[in-house]
Order: sequence, then C-alpha cells, then structure tokens
Amino acid sequence: MLNPSADGERFELHSAVAMPRAAGFLWNRRMMMQMNCRGYAVAQFMQPEPAKYAHAPNLEAKTFMQPEQPYYAHHPGRFFYIKDEESGEIFSAPHEPVRATPESFTFSAGKGDIAWRVVCAGIEVEMAVSLPVNDVVELWTLTVRNLSGRARKLSIYPYFPIGYMSWMNQSAEYRADLGGVVASSVAPYQKVADYFKQKDFKDKTFFLHERAPDAWEAKQETFEGEGGLHHPSGVQQETLDGGDARYETPAAVLQYRHGFAPDESQQYRFIFGPAFDDAEIRALREKYLSEAGFADTRREYSDYVSQGRGCIQIDTPDAALNNFVNHWLPRQMFYHADVNRLSTDPQTRNYLQDNMGMSYIRPAVTRSAFLHALSQQEESGAMPDGILLIEGAELKYINQIPHTDHCVWLPVCLQAYLDETGDYALLDEPVTGVTDGRTLSVFERISAAMRWLLDVRDERGLSLIAQGDWCDPMNMVGYKGKGVSGWLSVATSYALKLWAAVCDARQQPELAQSFREGAQQLNDAVNGQLWDGEWFARGITDDGVIFGTRKDNEGRIFLNPQSWAILAGTADDAQREKMLQAIEQQLETPYGVMMFAPAFTAMRDDVGRVTQKYPGSAENGAVYNHAAIFYIYSLYDITESERAYRLLRQMIPGPDGDDYLRRGQLPVFIPNYYRGAYYQFPRTAGRSSQLFNTGTVSWVYRCLVEGLFGLQGQADGLRIAPQLPAAWPSAKVVRTFRGAEFVVEMVREAGLEQTRITVDGKPLQGAVIHDIEPGRRYQVSVRLPA
Amino acid sequence: MLNPSADGERFELHSAVAMPRAAGFLWNRRMMMQMNCRGYAVAQFMQPEPAKYAHAPNLEAKTFMQPEQPYYAHHPGRFFYIKDEESGEIFSAPHEPVRATPESFTFSAGKGDIAWRVVCAGIEVEMAVSLPVNDVVELWTLTVRNLSGRARKLSIYPYFPIGYMSWMNQSAEYRADLGGVVASSVAPYQKVADYFKQKDFKDKTFFLHERAPDAWEAKQETFEGEGGLHHPSGVQQETLDGGDARYETPAAVLQYRHGFAPDESQQYRFIFGPAFDDAEIRALREKYLSEAGFADTRREYSDYVSQGRGCIQIDTPDAALNNFVNHWLPRQMFYHADVNRLSTDPQTRNYLQDNMGMSYIRPAVTRSAFLHALSQQEESGAMPDGILLIEGAELKYINQIPHTDHCVWLPVCLQAYLDETGDYALLDEPVTGVTDGRTLSVFERISAAMRWLLDVRDERGLSLIAQGDWCDPMNMVGYKGKGVSGWLSVATSYALKLWAAVCDARQQPELAQSFREGAQQLNDAVNGQLWDGEWFARGITDDGVIFGTRKDNEGRIFLNPQSWAILAGTADDAQREKMLQAIEQQLETPYGVMMFAPAFTAMRDDVGRVTQKYPGSAENGAVYNHAAIFYIYSLYDITESERAYRLLRQMIPGPDGDDYLRRGQLPVFIPNYYRGAYYQFPRTAGRSSQLFNTGTVSWVYRCLVEGLFGLQGQADGLRIAPQLPAAWPSAKVVRTFRGAEFVVEMVREAGLEQTRITVDGKPLQGAVIHDIEPGRRYQVSVRLPA
Repeated sequence: MLNPSADGERFELHSAVAMPRAAGFLWNRRMMMQMNCRGYAVAQFMQPEPAKYAHAPNLEAKTFMQPEQPYYAHHPGRFFYIKDEESGEIFSAPHEPVRATPESFTFSAGKGDIAWRVVCAGIEVEMAVSLPVNDVVELWTLTVRNLSGRARKLSIYPYFPIGYMSWMNQSAEYRADLGGVVASSVAPYQKVADYFKQKDFKDKTFFLHERAPDAWEAKQETFEGEGGLHHPSGVQQETLDGGDARYETPAAVLQYRHGFAPDESQQYRFIFGPAFDDAEIRALREKYLSEAGFADTRREYSDYVSQGRGCIQIDTPDAALNNFVNHWLPRQMFYHADVNRLSTDPQTRNYLQDNMGMSYIRPAVTRSAFLHALSQQEESGAMPDGILLIEGAELKYINQIPHTDHCVWLPVCLQAYLDETGDYALLDEPVTGVTDGRTLSVFERISAAMRWLLDVRDERGLSLIAQGDWCDPMNMVGYKGKGVSGWLSVATSYALKLWAAVCDARQQPELAQSFREGAQQLNDAVNGQLWDGEWFARGITDDGVIFGTRKDNEGRIFLNPQSWAILAGTADDAQREKMLQAIEQQLETPYGVMMFAPAFTAMRDDVGRVTQKYPGSAENGAVYNHAAIFYIYSLYDITESERAYRLLRQMIPGPDGDDYLRRGQLPVFIPNYYRGAYYQFPRTAGRSSQLFNTGTVSWVYRCLVEGLFGLQGQADGLRIAPQLPAAWPSAKVVRTFRGAEFVVEMVREAGLEQTRITVDGKPLQGAVIHDIEPGRRYQVSVRLPA
Repeated sequence: MLNPSADGERFELHSAVAMPRAAGFLWNRRMMMQMNCRGYAVAQFMQPEPAKYAHAPNLEAKTFMQPEQPYYAHHPGRFFYIKDEESGEIFSAPHEPVRATPESFTFSAGKGDIAWRVVCAGIEVEMAVSLPVNDVVELWTLTVRNLSGRARKLSIYPYFPIGYMSWMNQSAEYRADLGGVVASSVAPYQKVADYFKQKDFKDKTFFLHERAPDAWEAKQETFEGEGGLHHPSGVQQETLDGGDARYETPAAVLQYRHGFAPDESQQYRFIFGPAFDDAEIRALREKYLSEAGFADTRREYSDYVSQGRGCIQIDTPDAALNNFVNHWLPRQMFYHADVNRLSTDPQTRNYLQDNMGMSYIRPAVTRSAFLHALSQQEESGAMPDGILLIEGAELKYINQIPHTDHCVWLPVCLQAYLDETGDYALLDEPVTGVTDGRTLSVFERISAAMRWLLDVRDERGLSLIAQGDWCDPMNMVGYKGKGVSGWLSVATSYALKLWAAVCDARQQPELAQSFREGAQQLNDAVNGQLWDGEWFARGITDDGVIFGTRKDNEGRIFLNPQSWAILAGTADDAQREKMLQAIEQQLETPYGVMMFAPAFTAMRDDVGRVTQKYPGSAENGAVYNHAAIFYIYSLYDITESERAYRLLRQMIPGPDGDDYLRRGQLPVFIPNYYRGAYYQFPRTAGRSSQLFNTGTVSWVYRCLVEGLFGLQGQADGLRIAPQLPAAWPSAKVVRTFRGAEFVVEMVREAGLEQTRITVDGKPLQGAVIHDIEPGRRYQVSVRLPA
C-alpha cells in the first residue's frame, strides 16, 4: 500500500481508498499547497494575508489553517475526467469525483512535486504538479497513454473547479487570446478604506493550456448538469457547451478529443493560479507554459528545496528513520522557517522555535530572526503575542489573546543557535525596539525578558497564566488575574537556568546568581504548591482550585509540567521516577504520549477552552506532538535513552502497515497531533491531523542531534555522547558542524565498559572535539558498550 | 409545470429540473427557513444573532443573507432515500442527492407548510415541513405508499446532514434515550468575554423520530462511503453501521425496513432543530413529536400567519394578480414587519418601510416601530444607520458605513400610516432619545430630521452622499466629504414636501413654508446642476465629476433620480415626458425596469462599489424591484396608469410559462431583484435572486391601494380614485379601512365621460367617503369611463 521510492526522495501510496486523507505538500516563497491523494487541494497564497484562488462552493470563513480538513464532493481540487467516446464509460484521475476502481493507482509525494499514476479501463493517466520558487502558479503535466492494446477514441477533460469567488462579483469565460479559462472577481469589502487595501489583489484565477482544446466550459453548473460531479452532463455530451459564468460559480473545464493508437501517449501542460490582470496572465504563460519552462522550473525548485538540507545524514538499522531524517524532516523544518508558515504574524513562540530549526540549516536566518523578534519586545521586557513580519501586518486570531509564556522561548531556543554556531557575538548586537524606542543589546533584552518572567508571579511565587500559556489553550484559569500555571512556573525556571549559564559565560556571575536564585524559588514554590504525590499539577485557578491532580476525574495528569520539571531540575530522582511511571501508565499510547488524560467530557469553566474541546474534539487529550517531543527531550536530558527512542519512534512516521493506515498519513511530515483520548475513543485514536504546521519538527531535530546521536555543539567544540538504543549494533552519522564534516561511525562492542572515541584514528581525551577546522573532514569512531 | 392550487393557498411546481432553484419559505418568531424544491435548505434562528443548526460541510463565513444562494452536492438539505431491498434500486426524495427521474413530482409551497409528492419506481413519497409559532423546530411528516400493485420490501432512510458544526468541538451519536441522533458542538471563540456570551447557545442539533428505526448512522463519512451522496455506501449496505462522529462531520440518518403490501402506506414523523441540552430536547419531543402535536402546531401556525391578512381582497380579470395580492403579498409583508427580517439591527430605511407595510395589516405595530426608531435619533437630528432591536445588538456589516438617506424615510413612510389610520395623535407622542437624552414629540423629532437633511448639503444646495445612500451602494462618490447625490437631493425635496403638508395639518404654516422653501431650493439646485437634457444625473463626485449622464458609456441613466424627481415635483411636464421616454428606451426590459444602464464593465473608482459589481455581478444593472416599484409609484402619482400597470405586472410573479421558468421562481414572493444587464447578458436577464427580504413589498401594496385601486385613506376619509388598466372591464375590491368594510365594484361603462361613484346606492359628492363608521359595511359602486 505504501512505499518509499528506491532513493528515498518520494513516498508512494498505492490505494486512494485505504488512506483517503493522505496528502503531500508543496510550498514556495509566496504560496503553499496541500494535495490530497484523491485530488482535493488546499492552496493559499500571500497578498499579503493568506488568500485563495480556488474556492469552496460557498462563502467560506477566513480562519487559521485547520486540522483534519473536511473534504466533500465540491471541495476544491484538480481533476481529469477521461471518457471513452465509444463506450461512453468515464473515470476521473486521480480518484475523485467519479471514484472508479482503478486497475492500478500510485500517489507519489516528492520533495518538489506531487504525482499520480492511475490506470483505469486500459488507459494510463500520469499527472504531476510542481511550483516555481517565487511565483504563485501551479504547473501541471498530464500524460495519457493507451495501454489497452487496441485503438481508442478518448475525450480528456481537465476539470479545475474555481468555486464561489465573491458575493460582490464573479464571472468566468474562455479567453482564446490568453489560451484558457479566466475567472474574474472582486474581493468583497464594506469600508471604503478596505477598497484601497484590496484594489491590487489578484482577483482573477486563470487556467491556461499549452495545446488548444476542442471545447471548453466556464460555468460549474452547466458542466455538472443533472449528471452531478460523479457523472457530469458536460462529460456525457459529445462536446462541452462553451458557456460562461455570470455571477454563477466559475469552473475551468477543457475537452481534448483524440484517437489513440495502441501504446500511443499524449502529453498536456497547464498552469493554474491567481493574477491581477490579463498582462500578468500573459507574462506567466510566457514564462512557464512550455516544456522548457516546466523543466527550468523543476530545476530551480529543486535547488531551492535542497537548501533545506540538515546538518546530519544518518545511516542506522532503522531504514524508515534514515529516510525520514535524511529527506523529509529537514524539508519540513526548512518550510517552517523559510516562509514562517506563510503567515504575517506568527506566534512569538512559534517564530522562535521555527527559526531555532534553521540553526541546523542556515544559522544566519536564525540570527536575524532573533534580532527581528527582539526588536518587538515591549518596554516591560515582555514579548508580544506575535511577531509582525511585514509593514501593515496585524495580530490576528489567537494572537489577540494575552499569553504569558513567550519570553520563556528566548533562552530555550537561543541555546540551540549558540551551541550550533558558537556565535556568542550575537549577544552584543544592539537592537532598537520599535515599541520601546530603546537600543539595547540582545543580552540586555533577554535579561529583561527574564526579569519580566520573574516579576509576573503571584504571592506564592508561581507564574501567572493570564488568558493562556503554551500548548493547552486554558484561557479561563487566570483571566481574572490570579490563576497560575504549573507549566509556566517550571518553564520559567528552566529558562532562567539556561540563561544563568549564558551569564556565566559572559562573566556576569552576579546576574547568573540572581537568575539561579529565581529558578530555585520557582522550583521551591512548585514543589511546595503543586507536587501532587506522583506528579506536578497543571495550575491553580483564579479561585484557588488546583487542577491536574489525583482528585480530578478528567484532566488528571498533564504532560508538560512533568517534562519541564525534569528539564528545570524541579524534580528530584524519586519524584522523577514517580512521574515517569505515572506518564507511562496514564499518558502513553501506541501512537505517542497524550498531552493529558483522561479526556474531558464537558466544559470546566474555571479551566477553559481546552476543556471545551471535549468530548469528540480532535484535541481531546491528543498526542500533541509538540508536547510529546518535549517529554522526549527531557528524557534524553536525563539519559533515559531507551524510553526516549521508543517514544520518538512513535512520533516519526514509518512505513509499517496497519499502524500507518490508522494514522492515515504519508510519512512525509510530522503532523501537529495524532488523535488521543485513546481509552475513551479508541476508534479515532492515532489519526493524523494532516496539519504540517508545528513547532514539533525543530525539536525532533534537536533531539536527534543532542540526544539520540549525541553530537551537540558547545561554545568550544563538538560534544560526542550518543544515546543509541540498545538494539542498534551500529550507526553512522555524517555531521556538518561549523564548516567541518564529521563522519561518525558508532559501534556497540561487547565487553566494553565505557565509550571510547577516536578522531582520525587518535583517541579523544574526554568527549569534546576542540579546535575545529572549517573545511576539514574528521573521521570519528565511537565504540559503545553493548 | 406550475400551478396554483384551486383555493390559491398553495403553489405547485411539477418538475424539479425545470426550475431547479424554486423555493418556498417559512418563518416564525425565532427562525426562518427557505426550502428549495430539490431538497436543499437554508435555515437560521436567532440566538440572538442569526445562527444555524444545519451547516455547510466546511467552515462557512458569517454574513448577511446572500442572493442566488449557491447550491452544491453537500449543501444543507432534508432528504429521504428509498431503497428497494429486492432490486437494490434507490431514489431520493424530493430530488437530491440521487436525482432519479420521477414518474411524478410535485413541490407545493403553502402559506404554513412546504410539501412534496414524488412518485418513483412505483413508490409514492409525500413529505411536508411546518413550523410552530415560537419554537425553533422543524416538524417533518413522511408518508410512503406502495403504488406498484405488488408487495415491496423497502428501506427508508431520512438523511438530514448536519455539516461542519465547529472547529472547536463537534460530535454526534444516536441517543436511544432521546429517540434520535443528537449532534453536539461548541461555538468557537477566541476571547474570554465571548465565552460568556456563547455559553448558553443552542449548540446541539437533534433529529428525533416518533417510530424507532431499525438502524442509524451519525457520521457523514460512513454513510456516504465510496458510493458518494448519489449512491451512498450506507444505503447500499443491508443496514446502517450505527456509527458515531467524533470531531468528524455529523449527519442524522435513520433506516426503516418494511414490507409494503400493495397500496399500503406508512407514516413517519420527525423533528429537527437546535437545543441547549438534553432536557430541552426532551421537552421539545414531548411537546411536538406526535400526531396531535403536529396537528395543534399546524392550527396555531395557521392562526399566526392569518394575522397577516391585508386590507384589500381583490377580484379582477387578472387571476394571477388576484391570487398573489390576496394570498402571498400580505404574507410577505407580514413576515418583514413581524420579525424584521430576523435581524437585530435592521437598516433604518428597511425598518421604516417594512413597518410601513404593517399599516395595512396591524397599524399598531407601525406606530410602535416609529416610536422605537425615533428613540434612536441622534442629537443632530440624523437617524442612525440601523435600528437596534434588542439589548446588546450592534450595528453590523453595511450598517457600519455612513449613509445619508435614513431621515428621508420618516415622512415618506409615516404618510402611509397617517393615511390608513388618521392617527395624527401619534405626532404628539413624546419620545425620549437613548442617544440624545431629550424628550421630544414625534413631530419635533421628524422636523429635526428634516432640518438635518437641509443642513447636510453642499454650497450648491445639493445633498451630500458621504459613503452611500439608498439602493445603489455608491460608496466612493463622496467619501472625501464633497460628493453629492442627485437622488438624495430630490428624495429630500419629496420628504420636505410631504412633511410641509403635515405641518399645515398641524396649523404650523411657517414651518410648512420653510420646508417648502427648502424643497424648492433643492428642486432648483437639481434642475440647475443635474438636468442632463433628457434625465437627471445620479450625482457629482468628490472631484466634481457629474455621472449618470449622456456622456457616460456605462451607468448613463439611473432610475431613482427620475422617479423621485417626479414625486418631488422637480420635473416639469416637458421634462417628465423626456424622462419617461428615456426610461422606456434605456431601462425597460421584459422583466422590469433596470436600476441603471448600461451595465458597467469595470470598476470606476470615483463612483464606487456599485460599479465594482461588474461585469458578471447579479446586480449589474439589475431590475432592482425596490427601485422599480418607486418608479411605478411615481407613475401612479402622475396617473400614468397604463404604464404603471404594465410595469407592476412584470414585477409580480404570475403563472405564465416560459417567462416564469426564466425567472426560476415560484410566485409566492417578490424577490429583491430580477437579473438585469438585459442587453449585455441576455442569457441571465430576468433570473430571480430568490431573496425574499426586500423593501419592495410594502410599496407594491401601497401602489395597489393608492394607485391601481385608488382606495387611499386621508385624514378625513377614504378617497376613491382607481387607475385600472383600460383592458379591465371591471374589478371588485373589498377594502377594510378604519374598522369598516367597503365592497367596491368597479365597472367600465361605454359613453361615460367621468367617474360616477355611489355609496350604498347614493351618489357620492366628490371622491371622498367621509364620516366612516367602524363596523359598517359599505357597498360602493364605481362606474368608470371606458
């Protein structure tokens, strides 16, 4: 059902029915598209906020990108109908809308394209889409081949629904002069001021052909007729009507009639996208719509995406892990940070973590992202809820709700950059604040953020939660200004601990000391107020109710406070032992570690929206990968290697049959969650959100670098301390680091008492390789006890 | 294809394909629903803003009610699948989603219910829906009868899609304890404050049965399966799976299996709607879900809707007109004013006009609406853009955009009330302003509104348009504060003229004089600045560009400035002659009079949004009925009787074959527009918007009362001055007026030189019946020259 290609560069699915939601995604600097194996599509481009050029059949809400995208018959998609003119039989590729049973089906997600090969009724249809690097245009290739061994007369119909574009104005018609169907609309507005914001919008959608068709249709309703999408009247007719749409729903449909000799094939190229006017459509046609244009574009895109190569290439006994880590994980990280999830106001914590991932790819990007984020620090030292990326951007959606955790991520994420680059000079960079107007160094700004975190605590010394902190949208714990967060308290402690070390490195022992004291106060307060006997509680509400404790029948134990208490050193050994056991018993599932359990069955209105998501919500005690990876990170921190690897392996997709079908996702990205509530809703547990926007990925990479393969940078070198699972006899990692390349061979050796490292054949004293020479290739041998 | 029932109380359509968009509508105090003949539904209820309990398959935008509702396979609807268990054949009633060709099809829109009778494969399916007066619940009856003459084994599947309820939480399951499928959701919110607004929302949707089914399904995806909506996997199976929905899209599907003897019939009852909790669902079940409950509800609803009886019952040679005026027009008027279009902030002009219609039904409602509207007058004398009807309501959508015409409607609409009731005491009612805090009489407030209109003019004496006035959303003519409106100038003149007469009646000749002078100034200014030789221009932009003139290739002539110039007495006889001719040549079409012509082909950004709606917009030079009726009203005002009747007849639906199919609408209401752009887009011209919210209807009624039948009230009696079309030999009208009943027989008589009126056999001096005695029945004979 599911296979990687031989070179690992593609992932193939061989049934549209077994994993109906499986999808691949492509993006470029200005757009992204998710293509479902059955032909449904979600595509957005920036103008400057996310916009669409293929729409739902109704007036859709503008919203943030949703998980578990609902598909339905008229969902936007890209389809090709094929009709046998002699028998009248029809099918559609890739699968929707006709849903004919194919003789053969392959959906193939590549790094730079998405492709299908479908054979039905003796006809092979190959279709593929790719994107250029900088323009908003889809490049489609269609190849139809007659495998039936006899002559066939076929009609071939590209059908690209355009949908309900606008209540203000929409129309579509075939434009012989431009070579395709062009739909026009006017973005609706009420206020005059919005007119000026919108008047340069790309309100047209074009679908252009290279080869002139025999007929066409631009009106959805006429094409479908009484036959419906599964058997359109337009396709039943000898030729399409050639109609236009006038306020009616536009669609782009072409018809090619061709007699195919046995084995004959025909190829067609199309481009699809938004444009401002005819001139732009003409220019895009000129640039892209040719064999050479498509080929150039593929090459350029390939160059672009290969910039997203990570800093480790691995060869382990786990083939699926190798494939994912070498090919797909860095691609997903690169997407996050190169285009910031295609938003104009990423949440501050996301922005910092996504750019942390770039430390392993292009650290200069991380550097400038930190400088940019810090320039938006508030005078109090607080960080805003989102980082504005362009002129005119505004905080939207959840970024309008005050959250208190953003400062925590500064030292937590910066550490990875410093480890990777050793670029402590960043700390001295001056940053002029757009809000506070002051010019302070990076070091001063982060120190101010740390002081702000220490300030925003209650009389018990615990961190106030306001209307929310990270990961769990618990918006009502502290909206009256009193409620506190157990997680934020330990997260603050962890951040202070990390920052104190940076202060030490800068010879500021007093500052280091004061932050360490703050961390200790927090640890003491958490231990005093929130230790519940076997784990830490999640928080205390405005009205003094402690929650996330033994006495709660729902939401009894939350993962985040435990993971971060481990990282912060809040828990002693005995506490950690209990926490790990409680997590194993109550939160672990075959699909990963749940964010909390048991799932709620009703709103608890002193806790908030998180509980409102129950029951039946996808996030009801989900395996929220971003939370799970922090638990794994904390396990590596305390060298719980076996447990860490087991849980990491659950999160990273692998081609292992049944489990895979259950998740419903191709192993080309890590989704933001797998469904949880494992005990309450076993039917849906494990299912993928299909949402590839997640802070998880940069932490997975960090776990691999620092934990599993133990090849972590530090100020003065590269530390070698692998935590391979016991079952691996060996592993090889090629690590690029500060311009050098380290070929690290790790081997388990029976009888060995402790790890032995040699560098270029010479034994290493300690575990750190110092004095790294850029450009040099190091051969590192690591012999590990069996 | 299309027939009224014998008693005129229903309208029947005999093909779902010929008029696929034909729909009926029902409403009650808290909800409205529009049922399309093919089974699609649009239903909204107030909590307190319009909300849905059956949703689109995706996250739909909240918006005002749109014309030409786009339908698509998964649009919300109410469907019943029927499967022959022996042959496996399926069809669905009424038509969607299977779209089988029926042996017989009847869609029947009644005043208090909507019903279908479909015969397919020898099985008759009757389905009907009705509403109670005060609860939000649909009452559905299904009767299945075996007409095939042989025993049949059938499975019957009610399928009520519930759709994508919420991104925050959604689920559904069969609840044996409640007797049906119950779907639950949480209305999404971001801000804590919104939680408190929403926590009592009816976030559940129930579908309850009277008779227990054999099987059920609550998950859309499982029901459809690979078969798709036209041939669902669930229906292909022997029995439904009994699944639940957990964050997946909910649907309510039941299965009844029954062996039908020849001619046997089975009846089923269901209720469908939103609820807060199980207790409310139980209570609704108890109250409604029984034969007696349904029967009681029908009776109560019938009583409710019959309150909407108008003040004339007519019997003319035009049967379609009789039917429409006696049955449907007052129903539509009653809907508008009894529930104010189910909005919480109706536009001020709509609120006043809708309530003007109530003058002919329940004038006490009109009275209190005027008092309510005036209580929201601003200190300046201006009226706000919308009238807030409930605590906590807010101005939304277009009501946030400053329009300058609202004051005009005060005297224009009040006149109808005064004429109908003679209740001049209303003028002395004190009204305390919620904004200005002052207590002023109705008379003082309207006088202040008139002074405000006179104030808000430019140095030429023309009325400033700001960001818009009535009917044409020309939002950019005057957004810089300078642009003026030709229409508003003459409309102000007309309003002042009317109000001056009221001042006279109150013995305030100086005030009357000053308003008359204002009107004259306006008329002079309009004649001086805006007369274009054959018609009046529409306005002058901020930058001094006169538009709506001969020199414009698009938007050359606008209807509203002409109609109101006639009413205001701006135009002299020679001008009127030219205007009428220009309108006939440039604006009249077989479907009515267009709002302007020629249609625009591109945005004209000194004029505004109206032009942005082109080309391909439904309102591109539409036959905007609200504008058209004012032209007709103005024609009656100058006794252009023949022309007026001809145009009126185009607007009012009649069962006349081809024209009807073209409009695509049942003659049960007047839509807000018929598509125009007759010369540019003949294919779509005439098509109905299917939107029954329109200020048109009360003016149609006023045209009938004052114009066509000439039975207008005045302070001291009832004036008799019919303007029957020449082709009518006679007409009979029963007119209720101030508690009396007038049976008016109108007859054309050859050789008669002037109209002769007798009352109870006695000749009437003049045309006014004075000293009307409530309770008395008057026999009035009107003999008209042939």
